Amino acid sequence: MAKKLWGGRFKKEIDIDFFEFQKSIQYDYRLALYDVTHSQIHILALKDAGILTPKEEKKLHFALQEIYTEIKENKFKPNLQSEDIHTEIQNRVEKKVGKLADKLHTLRSRNDQIAFDEKFYCRKQSLEIEKLILEVIKSFLELSRRYIGFSIVGYTHTQRAQKVDFKDYLGSFVCIFERDRKRCDDFSNKIVASLGSGAFKGTILTKHYDNALQGIIKKLALDETIKLQTVENPLEHVSDRDFIVEFLSILSILQMHLSRFAEDMILFSTQEFNFVDLPEEFCTGSSLMPHKKNPDFLELVRGYTGRIYGNLMALLTIMKGLPLTYNRDMQLDKEPLFSSVDIIKDELKILARFIKGIKLNEKVIEKALEDESLYTVDLAEYLVKEKKIPFAQAHEIIGKVIRYAEDNKCKIKDMEDSLLNTFSAHLNHKIIKEIFG
Amino acid sequence: MAKKLWGGRFKKEIDIDFFEFQKSIQYDYRLALYDVTHSQIHILALKDAGILTPKEEKKLHFALQEIYTEIKENKFKPNLQSEDIHTEIQNRVEKKVGKLADKLHTLRSRNDQIAFDEKFYCRKQSLEIEKLILEVIKSFLELSRRYIGFSIVGYTHTQRAQKVDFKDYLGSFVCIFERDRKRCDDFSNKIVASLGSGAFKGTILTKHYDNALQGIIKKLALDETIKLQTVENPLEHVSDRDFIVEFLSILSILQMHLSRFAEDMILFSTQEFNFVDLPEEFCTGSSLMPHKKNPDFLELVRGYTGRIYGNLMALLTIMKGLPLTYNRDMQLDKEPLFSSVDIIKDELKILARFIKGIKLNEKVIEKALEDESLYTVDLAEYLVKEKKIPFAQAHEIIGKVIRYAEDNKCKIKDMEDSLLNTFSAHLNHKIIKEIFG
Amino acid sequence: MAKKLWGGRFKKEIDIDFFEFQKSIQYDYRLALYDVTHSQIHILALKDAGILTPKEEKKLHFALQEIYTEIKENKFKPNLQSEDIHTEIQNRVEKKVGKLADKLHTLRSRNDQIAFDEKFYCRKQSLEIEKLILEVIKSFLELSRRYIGFSIVGYTHTQRAQKVDFKDYLGSFVCIFERDRKRCDDFSNKIVASLGSGAFKGTILTKHYDNALQGIIKKLALDETIKLQTVENPLEHVSDRDFIVEFLSILSILQMHLSRFAEDMILFSTQEFNFVDLPEEFCTGSSLMPHKKNPDFLELVRGYTGRIYGNLMALLTIMKGLPLTYNRDMQLDKEPLFSSVDIIKDELKILARFIKGIKLNEKVIEKALEDESLYTVDLAEYLVKEKKIPFAQAHEIIGKVIRYAEDNKCKIKDMEDSLLNTFSAHLNHKIIKEIFG
Amino acid sequence: MAKKLWGGRFKKEIDIDFFEFQKSIQYDYRLALYDVTHSQIHILALKDAGILTPKEEKKLHFALQEIYTEIKENKFKPNLQSEDIHTEIQNRVEKKVGKLADKLHTLRSRNDQIAFDEKFYCRKQSLEIEKLILEVIKSFLELSRRYIGFSIVGYTHTQRAQKVDFKDYLGSFVCIFERDRKRCDDFSNKIVASLGSGAFKGTILTKHYDNALQGIIKKLALDETIKLQTVENPLEHVSDRDFIVEFLSILSILQMHLSRFAEDMILFSTQEFNFVDLPEEFCTGSSLMPHKKNPDFLELVRGYTGRIYGNLMALLTIMKGLPLTYNRDMQLDKEPLFSSVDIIKDELKILARFIKGIKLNEKVIEKALEDESLYTVDLAEYLVKEKKIPFAQAHEIIGKVIRYAEDNKCKIKDMEDSLLNTFSAHLNHKIIKEIFG
Repeated sequence: MAKKLWGGRFKKEIDIDFFEFQKSIQYDYRLALYDVTHSQIHILALKDAGILTPKEEKKLHFALQEIYTEIKENKFKPNLQSEDIHTEIQNRVEKKVGKLADKLHTLRSRNDQIAFDEKFYCRKQSLEIEKLILEVIKSFLELSRRYIGFSIVGYTHTQRAQKVDFKDYLGSFVCIFERDRKRCDDFSNKIVASLGSGAFKGTILTKHYDNALQGIIKKLALDETIKLQTVENPLEHVSDRDFIVEFLSILSILQMHLSRFAEDMILFSTQEFNFVDLPEEFCTGSSLMPHKKNPDFLELVRGYTGRIYGNLMALLTIMKGLPLTYNRDMQLDKEPLFSSVDIIKDELKILARFIKGIKLNEKVIEKALEDESLYTVDLAEYLVKEKKIPFAQAHEIIGKVIRYAEDNKCKIKDMEDSLLNTFSAHLNHKIIKEIFG
Repeated sequence: MAKKLWGGRFKKEIDIDFFEFQKSIQYDYRLALYDVTHSQIHILALKDAGILTPKEEKKLHFALQEIYTEIKENKFKPNLQSEDIHTEIQNRVEKKVGKLADKLHTLRSRNDQIAFDEKFYCRKQSLEIEKLILEVIKSFLELSRRYIGFSIVGYTHTQRAQKVDFKDYLGSFVCIFERDRKRCDDFSNKIVASLGSGAFKGTILTKHYDNALQGIIKKLALDETIKLQTVENPLEHVSDRDFIVEFLSILSILQMHLSRFAEDMILFSTQEFNFVDLPEEFCTGSSLMPHKKNPDFLELVRGYTGRIYGNLMALLTIMKGLPLTYNRDMQLDKEPLFSSVDIIKDELKILARFIKGIKLNEKVIEKALEDESLYTVDLAEYLVKEKKIPFAQAHEIIGKVIRYAEDNKCKIKDMEDSLLNTFSAHLNHKIIKEIFG
Repeated sequence: MAKKLWGGRFKKEIDIDFFEFQKSIQYDYRLALYDVTHSQIHILALKDAGILTPKEEKKLHFALQEIYTEIKENKFKPNLQSEDIHTEIQNRVEKKVGKLADKLHTLRSRNDQIAFDEKFYCRKQSLEIEKLILEVIKSFLELSRRYIGFSIVGYTHTQRAQKVDFKDYLGSFVCIFERDRKRCDDFSNKIVASLGSGAFKGTILTKHYDNALQGIIKKLALDETIKLQTVENPLEHVSDRDFIVEFLSILSILQMHLSRFAEDMILFSTQEFNFVDLPEEFCTGSSLMPHKKNPDFLELVRGYTGRIYGNLMALLTIMKGLPLTYNRDMQLDKEPLFSSVDIIKDELKILARFIKGIKLNEKVIEKALEDESLYTVDLAEYLVKEKKIPFAQAHEIIGKVIRYAEDNKCKIKDMEDSLLNTFSAHLNHKIIKEIFG
Repeated sequence: MAKKLWGGRFKKEIDIDFFEFQKSIQYDYRLALYDVTHSQIHILALKDAGILTPKEEKKLHFALQEIYTEIKENKFKPNLQSEDIHTEIQNRVEKKVGKLADKLHTLRSRNDQIAFDEKFYCRKQSLEIEKLILEVIKSFLELSRRYIGFSIVGYTHTQRAQKVDFKDYLGSFVCIFERDRKRCDDFSNKIVASLGSGAFKGTILTKHYDNALQGIIKKLALDETIKLQTVENPLEHVSDRDFIVEFLSILSILQMHLSRFAEDMILFSTQEFNFVDLPEEFCTGSSLMPHKKNPDFLELVRGYTGRIYGNLMALLTIMKGLPLTYNRDMQLDKEPLFSSVDIIKDELKILARFIKGIKLNEKVIEKALEDESLYTVDLAEYLVKEKKIPFAQAHEIIGKVIRYAEDNKCKIKDMEDSLLNTFSAHLNHKIIKEIFG
């Protein structure tokens, strides 16, 4: 195992199995970029406090900047023997600057770093997800434009209900995903990547962070509009993970919506509905049944709902009843967070292209639209509006007509006036044909 | 069973067990007020469309207003034989105005009503909860003022860490609950109680809702700043419940925070910590052990976390993979919603008074603050700042001093210079006494 | 508020809002029967220990027996001002026997009672649910017998896959629910309604419970085969609720299965599939669309999955990280338990009748079975078995034939030998017609 | 991407991003061993059906056996470009035997393989976990033996309740984990690794599996007592994952218990309780506070509860409402399963050694046992048993004595007879001293 950031008071070496059990480098290496940024701000604060000389700060800054570049260029390979990403960065700096590295972690706590790193990460990811949602919305709009003026069957209870514009059907998803996009936007705008809490009560450095932050954005040329700030209350900064729970909630709602679109498309692409033809390149076949073309992408999207919900539930459970301030349980927030972000991004990326590949089987749909039951509300509207029949009675009359047609397997538009009049004097073949034709 | 809003096409009467199974009046009666409001807007739209005469509208309005008043005065007792609150209101209006009631439900769907009712309810409840959070925050501030200048032991990993101002400890909860309050505020500001979607595609009435809404706030003297609006997309209005999932997420985060404060107070009120004396009127005893004074309120708050999380998980699961538009599954959103709102409100109401009743056992805490381990960071700050020792070395030195004191069961401030110098030449009795004294 | 079982050490009266918040009588009254049984065993132990005279025991026994009868006859109306069911029974006994009641709760703890009551309840309910599952299985078998020899379309990925016997399709649910039944059976067989733990460490009475239990089953003529036993370890008896989590897990699995049957029937009853005609008495209509006949029962069953899962998650969360032994959090196990048991029983009761009402639309299904893609495996079996073609090649050949037929919108069985031979020399019209015909 | 098991009917190549999204080799490679076994049984069935010659079967068997050995010796490195483990094994066999491999996957479906593999895996893992639980139980018993005759403070509501034998305290965990062990045992005994379902309706091979299975255990020298069997109902074999949900439920209950032991030890190792000294090699320090020795292992165990619950919730959600038979959603069952099994095994392995390292701070505990409130039940027992005072009155009397002692900050055993008599004539200094001394 690599060098650790603690140990003076310990007589026994850490148990090797336990070291493996507790280390986090195998997943928290993903926060490397943010952790380097924390270090770069931190050394500015140390310089401001007179603990680092300007020269020392510069040397450390360059060492950190080299690591930063490595990460940016995807050349960063963490040593999996390090305890965590904070230790890993420290050890790398030591390799570059030798003894001077002993001053890097001065009066700083990993509690502060990890909260900073995660806030930064969430901010960045919510912005990216927002963009991906926008691409999905654009795909819906493109699909909509392709079928201007086309109508489809609308459902309630998965039963045929009324004819509806395809544009309005897709428009409902546009509305829904626009709300999801807005949630990501509101969230990312709220996030402040605060720092300076020490272990939880602040240190003599805390007041130097304000100065450190003033120049940092310029110095680092941060490509983020991320808000940086010295902690308002250091205890709560290291204690809480509500921002991650909130993010996972937002992703759960988004995923719930994705599962519903997936379900609709799975239904519409059954041989029985046969309303849509799914893009083949997003389907797979069967190793036994040569004829199969399965809507795997949609099924996986629907299935991932379990994982996204499970990740939310995991973090909620982890945080339940923890005493203040930091507890080690909180380390386990990262895998659910990374898992949900990765899944959602993968889904959205593919979905935007998937939607564009959807083709309507227009003839099948037009045939389905001949179903008379889709127009009972239109008939009701006629009776109420034109014939001044109280709605409750109109509803009753039409229900009986429908029942009769069903029992006698006949079309309503084929019913003659004499028959129609047994239900209501206000019904006649001509008007029925107009509405149901 | 009472009169239903449907049935013309059915030959068989509904199965009596199934009727009981599917009815919702036993819980959705709580939405009565909002449902009456929907009806009052609806009849204005009917008047605007020429389907109701002004006189008819007036008559219906007065009938509805009577019901409204009954509800406001808590005199409303729903008939539990009705299918749901919409049917119940309809039946009551019929009792008041007779046949005219047949025109009330004209071209309207319960799908539209329930979405409107729930949005209105969520808006109102989030505002109320926001106010209750504010009371809790005020209680924290009052408690803080009562102990100005007092310090307590701060913990990480439930292990003593550093001395911390009680004000800052309470301040962390103020920060945390302020974020919860803000979440409620943002949420309630977002909610628009839209209506006019019919079953899901709108009706000929939809355009008349705009006119209906213009006068309604004045007419009803709505005490809410609720935003009313004709649906943007009628399909999604009746299909989605994301606003309830969002509300339940907000309440889950709030509840998570509550459980953490509860845990801290449970710990602090053990005989071993003995830092706080809990208000007796919020504790209970044991039927076997006469000496017991148990922190039941705090335990129940901690325990309710399960219910609040479970309610969120329930709704997320319900909504997974539902095809558009409305499905009956969605009826089951109400019990989790009502349950979470009730629990949270009860907790907050009591908590605001509970906090005010907390008394610190100042002498016990002062004794605990004599623990030298609480000041190791201060010593590190000294070594780093005054003696220019690199932090990594300072950390190592102090760790060894601590270990020595522990092994030899002695106080650090009693160590003599000769002993201290074996750890570092920079340590001496005088400075140690200053820091640990 | 009614008389309490504790209070001597308290100076302040309990806060009235908090009393309401913490009381459980509004739901735990459902355990009344089991709580009376606990009392009847307890007074036998007290007699055995010489604390009650035989005459006193008799008098208390008769008082308890009266209450027992009241409960059995559904005449028991709990006083909702009592704190809990234990207090309520105590107060009722006091009304019947006066001062003697002061001896009833001797050296007994509600911690012991509630664990006993809940174990007894779970045992009884799992037996009842087992019986209800059996009724559902019987309904499947009856439906199966009604359609002997009939085939339906089998699906994977909701895509047509192969023709399958309806008997085997229903048989899969028989297998599945038989496993659920077995889970309930194993569970109820494991449950031991133990008692005698006092608050958690036992009392001087513990050893007298063994004697008390010997005669009790005879004396009470318990209609249960419930296992009664003095606690093996008193601490864990009052501490754990794993048996309830296990029960809720069993019910969650059962509910998951119910949701899947519901989903299949919802699909099969769409106008597009139209494979089944659902019993009308378990459907409802629309208040706007007169033609609607919605599969509400199935949708509610599917939707209740959320509630059942949520209840499991609630209890798991409640129990997380609780220190030994009893904590008040555990009181909140009851509402999720009762809720899940009630929902499941209601569903199963109706489902058994619902299944019997299902009618297949045989002609529609027979038409669907003409789909050639359902027989590609049969063709593969032929090529592999009779023509000795390696399966990988057979799969490839058939895939291409299918694709050709799809692209050219022709039937495979209409292809001529010349065309078939372009795919494989082993294919010919005669054999194709045999398999796809 | 590597060769696939399907594709003849597809014109477009699979989308590369979607291929990555849908492949499972990166986690299902862990089922390699079981998948090879399936293949070995399968080729026996093919031989039995006359589709493979004995020589072909032998050749394939040896190729498979080589792969089997590689896996057993941990030399198996899957090609991450393969779609899944089934494809990967197929491709490896092809490398070894060439064209003959085209016959391996004859009339077999991955649906059947994965269900077989997972059942086998669950069986094996539940047996291993059972053994690990046994080791934990042994550690409890060893710890118990080390402190024979020693008592500790027992708690309810985290408040001091009664003195209790340390043996009984540990015994409660022995009882609890013994139930967990039993659950694993019952579970593994139930599992039957069935196979032979084809895609879901069986094939002409199904009947040959019976013969294939007869010799296989001998031939493979399977070290498992695993039950192998031809599927009872092929549809449900490929459709259900209830056995995994059941396993994840069992692990959730076990994890809940682990979190409670962890919580107790975290409490007992605070400076305030100071009842136990945790083994240093399972603790870590702070990078800022040199004195810290944190109970990280226990915190992580407590925290992992979130992940284990989350995994259960994930799978329950995935399976909700899926139509029969196989759906691609079900592929997502594996990561939660593997995750829970890995976490639980790691925890148990370390815990067995951790428990052995626990040391009681006997003096601190003995001091705590001087707390008089721990003996109020003993006093009640005395009053009830010896003085024949009704318990309700004894409870009241003692409550008042306790209150008096608390208010006056005096010891009960220091109270004089005159004072004691103001509470009850039955109290006197001598008897009090005996009980509280």
